Amino acid sequence: MGQVSKQARIEAIGESGFLDRLLPNLPLHRGVLVGPGDDCAVIQSGRKKLLITTDALVEGAHFRTGWLSPRQLGRKAYLVNLSDIAAMGGTPRFCVLSAGVPHGFPVRDLMRIHRGLADAARESGAAVVGGNLTHCERLFLSVTLIGGVPGQPVTRSGGRPGDFIYVTGLLGDAALGVKLLQRDPKARGGAVRRFAEPQPRLRVGQLLSKGLASAMIDVSDGLLRDLHHLCAASRVGARLEIDRVPCSAAVRRADPMLALTGGEDYELLWTISPRRSSHMERLRQKFDCTFTRIGQLMPRSYGIRIYDGRRRVRVDRDGFDHLRGEQMR
Amino acid sequence: MGQVSKQARIEAIGESGFLDRLLPNLPLHRGVLVGPGDDCAVIQSGRKKLLITTDALVEGAHFRTGWLSPRQLGRKAYLVNLSDIAAMGGTPRFCVLSAGVPHGFPVRDLMRIHRGLADAARESGAAVVGGNLTHCERLFLSVTLIGGVPGQPVTRSGGRPGDFIYVTGLLGDAALGVKLLQRDPKARGGAVRRFAEPQPRLRVGQLLSKGLASAMIDVSDGLLRDLHHLCAASRVGARLEIDRVPCSAAVRRADPMLALTGGEDYELLWTISPRRSSHMERLRQKFDCTFTRIGQLMPRSYGIRIYDGRRRVRVDRDGFDHLRGEQMR
Repeated sequence: MGQVSKQARIEAIGESGFLDRLLPNLPLHRGVLVGPGDDCAVIQSGRKKLLITTDALVEGAHFRTGWLSPRQLGRKAYLVNLSDIAAMGGTPRFCVLSAGVPHGFPVRDLMRIHRGLADAARESGAAVVGGNLTHCERLFLSVTLIGGVPGQPVTRSGGRPGDFIYVTGLLGDAALGVKLLQRDPKARGGAVRRFAEPQPRLRVGQLLSKGLASAMIDVSDGLLRDLHHLCAASRVGARLEIDRVPCSAAVRRADPMLALTGGEDYELLWTISPRRSSHMERLRQKFDCTFTRIGQLMPRSYGIRIYDGRRRVRVDRDGFDHLRGEQMR
Repeated sequence: MGQVSKQARIEAIGESGFLDRLLPNLPLHRGVLVGPGDDCAVIQSGRKKLLITTDALVEGAHFRTGWLSPRQLGRKAYLVNLSDIAAMGGTPRFCVLSAGVPHGFPVRDLMRIHRGLADAARESGAAVVGGNLTHCERLFLSVTLIGGVPGQPVTRSGGRPGDFIYVTGLLGDAALGVKLLQRDPKARGGAVRRFAEPQPRLRVGQLLSKGLASAMIDVSDGLLRDLHHLCAASRVGARLEIDRVPCSAAVRRADPMLALTGGEDYELLWTISPRRSSHMERLRQKFDCTFTRIGQLMPRSYGIRIYDGRRRVRVDRDGFDHLRGEQMR
């Protein structure tokens, strides 16, 4: 992390910059197996390991009024958390919702938000067990999700040089959906749906956690940024082949960069030892999403290098941070 | 709960009215011992019972800029949750912070908020294990706290007609502190400190949970409102003797009603069978706060009646709801 002046504003460093400053000062604590900085915290509770994650949707930062129905809002507030559980190979169990709503907010919409949340939780085998409701001039929905994990959770830090890098599904559609909504709040279609209704890869994450993935993260901030997080945690470099990065025809047509830097795809990015990668083909057949090999981890000194075919390229935009970006304005 | 029109706005029913509408529709779920509607949810995790609670501080609803230092904000965001753990007789263990900060928010202040939170957690034996940081035009700090509970957690629903009603400490000072801050944001003194730096009764709650309290709740919404919550959950009535309600000389001088309706005291309110109440005197000597008997539970048909000496009185204001009130405006 770079030096930041004492008067620095939060948008100058973003969430991950803040985390970089915070982490060295955090004390260790008994029972905390994985602390802040991964997709979920992992704590020991009796003989069980629990996963804990929290994430929020905020009006003006993640959506504008009218982009999402109340039901979609409630579902998405849950699903962005579910994606973090998926990225550790966990099983969701219990969640709470802390909501802030503006004066004049319709009770009916709040009921629909809650029903969307409760339905999404139930579909994944979890339950809403509590919450808090208060006033806030901007609508926010903050969910904390607690999960179990059968064996060892997959963290971001287990990647080794030589491991292949894989990703599920297609990248960039959610960011394209945002662009379309910015132009026309009534826009509909596949890309908008990808933004409005994430489909976290829970089962894929669970299967990959059975001795396959060496490291894993969900693609929520954009591929380049999340690959950077994984490499930093694993203390490795990477060679990324952007001509292999999977994206839809719509993204290719509109702006292929969205597949590298657009956030909110909620796909999984993982690494796997080459000798285990033969399992990928067999595993992929169980799911209705693609698994694509997009590069390879390298020694740390290599850094992160991006190739388009045989040509090395530079990509400046490294994904999206809700603190720094102007996406919703 | 009363009928509410389809166009109802949230401030017409408040948080507890919303909960009344929500609860009948919530499905039961395996492993959930106590669901929404108590101070904490109680879940079974292996052989252990876990408590989960979430609460938020929001600029404009709970404080105005300048009322609390960043450090106080971080501490208070934790302590209001700790009070819910105290009210079930639990032990705090792990928390996460979901924060929304406006553009331009100083990194230094955010570090101080986090330090206040982490210090308060550590002082109570817990740790911050994760979080989320995003943009919101209004500062919000939403904490989820997970705790353990050695035996049976004390819920709101175990009160029986005939049980005595007790409360810790003095009531009304925090609300008086808010009034003083509204007049002068630089106001200081005991009442302001009670608002800015809650001191949840963690140890008292733990001792009362060892077979003493039949029901318990923390006084966060105001005595009358929280007594109402406890009576509703226990399906009982109550006789409250307001001349016994403990308050400071400052509250008595300014507005004695604050002791009945002012929120954010974070004292404990509990009920106890008369034959166990002899333990109260012995127990009280272990703590530097008073225990005051302020009434008795009655059959449900009795309702909640308020007496000032031998005279029955009516009190309209039933505490404070951050959704309905105009406290911070």
